[in-house]
Amino acid sequence: MSTPIRFRLARIPSGLPVAETWSTSHEPTPAPGEGEVKLAVRYISVDPAMAGWIQPVRSYAEPVQVGEVMKAFGIGEVIESRSERYPVGATVFGLLGVQTEITLSAKGLRKLDPKLAPLPKYLGGLGMPGFTGYFGLTEIGQPQEGETVVVSAAAGAVGSVVCQVARLKGARVIGIAGGADKCRYLIDELGCTAAIDYKAEEVGAALNRVAPEGVDVYFDNVGGATLDAVLARIRRHARIVGCGGVSQYASLQDARGPANYLQITAQSARMQGFTMLDYLQRIPEAGMQLGAWMMQGKLKTREHVLEGITQFPAALQLLFAGGNQGKLMIKV
Amino acid sequence: MSTPIRFRLARIPSGLPVAETWSTSHEPTPAPGEGEVKLAVRYISVDPAMAGWIQPVRSYAEPVQVGEVMKAFGIGEVIESRSERYPVGATVFGLLGVQTEITLSAKGLRKLDPKLAPLPKYLGGLGMPGFTGYFGLTEIGQPQEGETVVVSAAAGAVGSVVCQVARLKGARVIGIAGGADKCRYLIDELGCTAAIDYKAEEVGAALNRVAPEGVDVYFDNVGGATLDAVLARIRRHARIVGCGGVSQYASLQDARGPANYLQITAQSARMQGFTMLDYLQRIPEAGMQLGAWMMQGKLKTREHVLEGITQFPAALQLLFAGGNQGKLMIKV
Repeated sequence: MSTPIRFRLARIPSGLPVAETWSTSHEPTPAPGEGEVKLAVRYISVDPAMAGWIQPVRSYAEPVQVGEVMKAFGIGEVIESRSERYPVGATVFGLLGVQTEITLSAKGLRKLDPKLAPLPKYLGGLGMPGFTGYFGLTEIGQPQEGETVVVSAAAGAVGSVVCQVARLKGARVIGIAGGADKCRYLIDELGCTAAIDYKAEEVGAALNRVAPEGVDVYFDNVGGATLDAVLARIRRHARIVGCGGVSQYASLQDARGPANYLQITAQSARMQGFTMLDYLQRIPEAGMQLGAWMMQGKLKTREHVLEGITQFPAALQLLFAGGNQGKLMIKV
Repeated sequence: MSTPIRFRLARIPSGLPVAETWSTSHEPTPAPGEGEVKLAVRYISVDPAMAGWIQPVRSYAEPVQVGEVMKAFGIGEVIESRSERYPVGATVFGLLGVQTEITLSAKGLRKLDPKLAPLPKYLGGLGMPGFTGYFGLTEIGQPQEGETVVVSAAAGAVGSVVCQVARLKGARVIGIAGGADKCRYLIDELGCTAAIDYKAEEVGAALNRVAPEGVDVYFDNVGGATLDAVLARIRRHARIVGCGGVSQYASLQDARGPANYLQITAQSARMQGFTMLDYLQRIPEAGMQLGAWMMQGKLKTREHVLEGITQFPAALQLLFAGGNQGKLMIKV
């Protein structure tokens, strides 16, 4: 058995995390106590929210403290068990951290079936990103047939599920992404009606062209100038789903608010946030629906798998540069 | 019969309206055609929204054009009629404009009963401000018993109704207003649990003191820094009722967005706008409920009546300086 590797928060970055943000350590993993299991971590999820988790700002979860192992969702295999529910050899999902091994309480884990789908899918379309897109769009966005739905970071892990579910609900779907390749993917693979390359065209002007009727639902993964451009074009009773503010993660303590927010009042619109914490009890429902669509070929997701835990700092940089193609994760 | 006086938009102000924003004219009022009535205007409502109505920005209504008579709600008495529903002598409410006489279609009018309440009440607690506060709070804010409700511009025409309805729903009510007199009014007359004088104390620090538990419902009449201070302190599943942005009216085309808007996502909160257009069909319901509370002494409203239509430019300046005590209007 090789020595464990753990990535810890070395210092809080002033903007996005960089190599110096992290340190590594190699303590042995304790044996599990009653009700605990020891896991070998197989996959580590690399998510935009990580930039927020290490900033000392008020959010839905306590921030990671300097010196602590970095928080991360992941998939592990039980290698020692003192929990009847999770015997040795079981595959589980949970908050495992950026490390190769962990001993933790079995309470927060969820069992996965490796025969139903390849493991990476459980961090993507059949995991938190898929559930997030599903609940955010259907419960908060509530798109109606024929309405216009705009999705930012549309080629990303959450956005790609949102685009396809919106299409399955009968909406016109306009995806926003950076680069011609991603835009082609939105149209050819995800079934978007139109795609906007924000690196090539001003989003407001593009929306005037592809959605002159205005926007009924906006699934916001980025905040910033894109949110402002959409706010200026919402229709009466529009719904804006607040699912993140990637463009603001670099300066969370000095975020810029959307100058056009008064349109929310003027158009009797609604801007509503959520986190998966609101829907934990309903994960089985989402898993069954998304799994069924996948098996019917109606829902496609991509995973981008890097090899080796030492890739973690580089993986984050790839993610914030928008260089990944599909849900980013590390195979340990 | 004296010559009519009409206030017209002379030029669009770069900020709030000033004396030079207006010109007056004196054309005779045409005789009513079929289905029309000619009114002598008795009261003209002076509202914060007027600053927005003259700016060429996208809102719920078309802006007033240069040269046009300024839009205003008002109460009039029918002096010539070609509408069976509104005979000579009837008292009506409608969009009458800032003028002493008008001939218009009877369709957009609503009949008032001068015996049920003094006429000024129909521009205040039993009029648009009252209905706005009632529907915004109950339908969008949805305060629950024991929750903490914060109201800005709390001593204003809308805010004072919101404070009292929230209290009647069993909430803890914190009013924000400018000056010690208004704050005393909030506690002594409107039954607020606490009052914050934003001119004397930073709103965020004051909220930490009087609402350490955080904010469940915020009825936003002002936007700006106050909205930001509240956003930083909302509780999970908070509701923010968007009813205006008075602090932004001076610079509508360059409004500052709320920097803390990411808290809407982080706290799974909802920010939702509305206008009375959404509830026009339900005005009778609100009128009956508010009227009943008034007669039971549970709902108090103040009216601030200036005499003479030539006061109009000064009335607006008083309004935006926060110098009025109660719903501002002009007795013609």
